[in-house]
Amino acid sequence: MRGQDTYRVAVLGATGAVGRRMVETLEKRNFPVGELRLLASPKSAGQTVPFRGQAVTVQAVDEHSFDGVDLALFSAGAGTSLTWAPVAVRSGAVVIDNSSAYRMHDEVPLVVPEVNPEAAFRHQGIIANPNCSTIQLVVALKPLVRFGIEHVSVATYQAVSGMGQKAVDALLREIAAFGSGEEVTTVFPVASADVRHPMAFNVLPQCDVFVEHGYTKEEMKLVNESRKILELPNLQVSPTAVRVPVLYGHSESVSVRFSQPVAPDDVRKALDGAPGVRLMDDPTQGVYPHPRVAAGTGDTFVGRIRQDLWDSHTVWMFVVADNLLKGAAWNAIQIAELLVGRSTS
Amino acid sequence: MRGQDTYRVAVLGATGAVGRRMVETLEKRNFPVGELRLLASPKSAGQTVPFRGQAVTVQAVDEHSFDGVDLALFSAGAGTSLTWAPVAVRSGAVVIDNSSAYRMHDEVPLVVPEVNPEAAFRHQGIIANPNCSTIQLVVALKPLVRFGIEHVSVATYQAVSGMGQKAVDALLREIAAFGSGEEVTTVFPVASADVRHPMAFNVLPQCDVFVEHGYTKEEMKLVNESRKILELPNLQVSPTAVRVPVLYGHSESVSVRFSQPVAPDDVRKALDGAPGVRLMDDPTQGVYPHPRVAAGTGDTFVGRIRQDLWDSHTVWMFVVADNLLKGAAWNAIQIAELLVGRSTS
Repeated sequence: MRGQDTYRVAVLGATGAVGRRMVETLEKRNFPVGELRLLASPKSAGQTVPFRGQAVTVQAVDEHSFDGVDLALFSAGAGTSLTWAPVAVRSGAVVIDNSSAYRMHDEVPLVVPEVNPEAAFRHQGIIANPNCSTIQLVVALKPLVRFGIEHVSVATYQAVSGMGQKAVDALLREIAAFGSGEEVTTVFPVASADVRHPMAFNVLPQCDVFVEHGYTKEEMKLVNESRKILELPNLQVSPTAVRVPVLYGHSESVSVRFSQPVAPDDVRKALDGAPGVRLMDDPTQGVYPHPRVAAGTGDTFVGRIRQDLWDSHTVWMFVVADNLLKGAAWNAIQIAELLVGRSTS
Repeated sequence: MRGQDTYRVAVLGATGAVGRRMVETLEKRNFPVGELRLLASPKSAGQTVPFRGQAVTVQAVDEHSFDGVDLALFSAGAGTSLTWAPVAVRSGAVVIDNSSAYRMHDEVPLVVPEVNPEAAFRHQGIIANPNCSTIQLVVALKPLVRFGIEHVSVATYQAVSGMGQKAVDALLREIAAFGSGEEVTTVFPVASADVRHPMAFNVLPQCDVFVEHGYTKEEMKLVNESRKILELPNLQVSPTAVRVPVLYGHSESVSVRFSQPVAPDDVRKALDGAPGVRLMDDPTQGVYPHPRVAAGTGDTFVGRIRQDLWDSHTVWMFVVADNLLKGAAWNAIQIAELLVGRSTS
């Protein structure tokens, strides 16, 4: 795929929160797009999305949508990916899929370019983009693998945009109702239509549906995807995924237990300048990561690095990234840049 | 102190968020108040606070404020407590102090009535009310002590009201500015005037000032106060304290490592019906604790109880309580009820 002057690029799910950011990022990065084909469900077809000063009309995806396409960026849910990824691959496109459909398939690489770029080149037509909360975690863990990671605990503070634009709108509606003095009567779709709670001024210890042993799908993604990306099949991850009334930017309180004593300064040195990492760690001066500083950037911010009070093998840190950019769109475009042979920094 | 028909009660800091809730709770509980003396700094004197249908005028605290007072409830900051608690004790009052001033003093009991009620009766004039985030943690841990607790990790999701009414107002102002389409320009006082960040739609990994080894005062309270209240001097607590844009109700993601294998069902059985605990644990039905369900109540809600994925000795849970009620005012009134010999359930 390397060496072409330009590429025909399709974006499926172009009207969604992540899809729009994919198009924006292609433009911002000056990706060598020869032709841009924006695709969505028939329901969203006809909308326009701006690209390089033009309003590009979104087309309904069909059997011929991927004819001649080099690179297909998918962000339209697992069901849609299962239907259309095989079609795109048969048409000769390489699919970078942001859904969970193929992530754990053995023959599909699951790629974070700062962590396992070489895996991208082993694709058989489909490359999976990991889940948002996993991406920022493994970017922060990768420079620490050399110390021997045994166990990771992670409690998340996840933004509502991880559930799509509808969830952003729902939270803003709740807040507006509150601000106007009304009772907050709207309720927040946590995972399905059946479970609804208020999200304004609230914290909900559920992201996505429950799958096994009292854990959610989101929590098991943190376990299974981290193992695959870091190529540490025995890594132990203890996850708690929690939604907070934030629009953009996931935060994570993370402990890392190593097989040997590791000092916070060793962790700081390993993270400082590491790919994709922005060290932000001068807490007494109020310098630490938070969503409002990470939103709109492609970096993974790490701070509050400190020794566990009781265990010299364990270090704690706070990890924040923009869930729609590094957690989705930007990671996908980074994979595309890898494939076409561009530097992705 | 038991056995009187009524008591002369003083509330110092009566105009603050906690002080007002102390007065409300005295009324709600029909506490045998003979005379209520509301006290504050000269700046707040002259304001009125409703009690039993009357507007009680707040007086400036002075050397004679506690003359004849049986019970003095303090919620006006550590400096004020250090100044006025000795005066109140000399006047013959028992002080229940919500500040951090005396909590770790050896001769001052630090009391959560569901956990260590007997300690209250060993007072020498002053009883300390623990920090909000500690109270709900130890209420949830106490029924589990019998299994042999070795280590606790806690990541908090703390409401802004923990910083007082000013912080609630600041967050609402930020949100209102956002809602009206303005840039959010106000900034949130995290711990001091020097460190300010936006709080609306944000998560800040700092509560109170940094004290040692990269930990905050709030985090060290979780360590030291829990040890004292649970009477487990070697208990290991690994804390991370984080502020979230919630008005009322602190949440905590908690792991508990025991000296033996403990099943989630054992934990559920131990917590179900335990003093002060409301078990709320049917996650697939969307039943778990969150701040909007805990706010306004005196209970500590526990749910999302599950085994650690890798360690049969470790159980995880999610713990939520109203930080101004169980975390402050209600716990103080419960101590008062203990002292006067009332049932506190």
